[in-house]
Amino acid sequence: MTRVVLASASPARARLLRDAGIAVHIEVSNVDERELESAMPDATPEQICLALAQAKARDVAERINPEPDTIIIGADSVLDVDGTSWGKPATEEVARQRWHAMAGRSAVLRTGHWLIAGSVQVGQVASTTVWHGTLSDAELDAYIATGEPLQVAGGFTLDGLGAPFIDRIEGDPSNVIGLSLPLLRSLLATVGVTWPSLW
Amino acid sequence: MTRVVLASASPARARLLRDAGIAVHIEVSNVDERELESAMPDATPEQICLALAQAKARDVAERINPEPDTIIIGADSVLDVDGTSWGKPATEEVARQRWHAMAGRSAVLRTGHWLIAGSVQVGQVASTTVWHGTLSDAELDAYIATGEPLQVAGGFTLDGLGAPFIDRIEGDPSNVIGLSLPLLRSLLATVGVTWPSLW
Repeated sequence: MTRVVLASASPARARLLRDAGIAVHIEVSNVDERELESAMPDATPEQICLALAQAKARDVAERINPEPDTIIIGADSVLDVDGTSWGKPATEEVARQRWHAMAGRSAVLRTGHWLIAGSVQVGQVASTTVWHGTLSDAELDAYIATGEPLQVAGGFTLDGLGAPFIDRIEGDPSNVIGLSLPLLRSLLATVGVTWPSLW
Repeated sequence: MTRVVLASASPARARLLRDAGIAVHIEVSNVDERELESAMPDATPEQICLALAQAKARDVAERINPEPDTIIIGADSVLDVDGTSWGKPATEEVARQRWHAMAGRSAVLRTGHWLIAGSVQVGQVASTTVWHGTLSDAELDAYIATGEPLQVAGGFTLDGLGAPFIDRIEGDPSNVIGLSLPLLRSLLATVGVTWPSLW
């Protein structure tokens, strides 16, 4: 019986896996994300999210000393706005500025994925284009007052209070929520694990 | 305080609204969907899902005799495959045939929305393009054995066991799950209700 360990504190990622039928164990990594990110100042958003996904998965692998049939999944999401990486907004003011900047336009949500299965490691980034809606000042105030935007990469959700404010996407929606299920299915296949075998 | 009534038995629709912060009351309509559909043999999938959404909302409105500040939401989803409307597959064999037919190609998930707010009624169809993945025979057998495909329009989900088998979409993902939250926000605005006022 394969054991799936998610190296992430994100409840949205855990719910994605559970809704898709996967029993998942949570092991939060001790990676200092800011330190790692500031150590790679010239990196693209794609490189950053893959490096963070890798670091999280490896940190947990070292800590839990996994059985050979354990699969560890690390993931990290960033919003790529014209090559700049937007993580969680630090303040309400930053969240507000970002929503104003994004109104009616698109950016790319990139999630780095890193799988460790015994001695094999595979990683890949999935990218989904996201079009933000245009909010009235009252809507934006109300959304920011919920506190949700400050908790999430890019300052919005697709599976929570933010969903009505995202007009459309192009790509895989689960990738925007934090873990691309079709990419994960494909990465698992490369390490010899079929998705239904995890049900 | 606005009361939101969902005229649908779909747990996926109720969850979409609740995850987006809306407290929702469920009132399932008594509409005979097959009868209504067979009464409009020349209708397009778009016309069918809008007519069904309207019929469900009106049926519930007649039954519950709503207060003026009650909003009733009717919805119906179909998969539009080259102009043919695919609802729930009747049998496992039909579900299998559909997945074989859809492998690696796209179809359009259309959801009709109908809102009743006092004496005002508004309706609109949202459309999202969905690309199906290519499943191995073992994956398809396992997915069909879960029973899920037989319960849902088009024979797949984006928020359940089917998610890893859908490669990508273009449009609003909540529309595929059964209710377009951005369209609903826009329809509510036309009847003078802002989304955050429902939180």
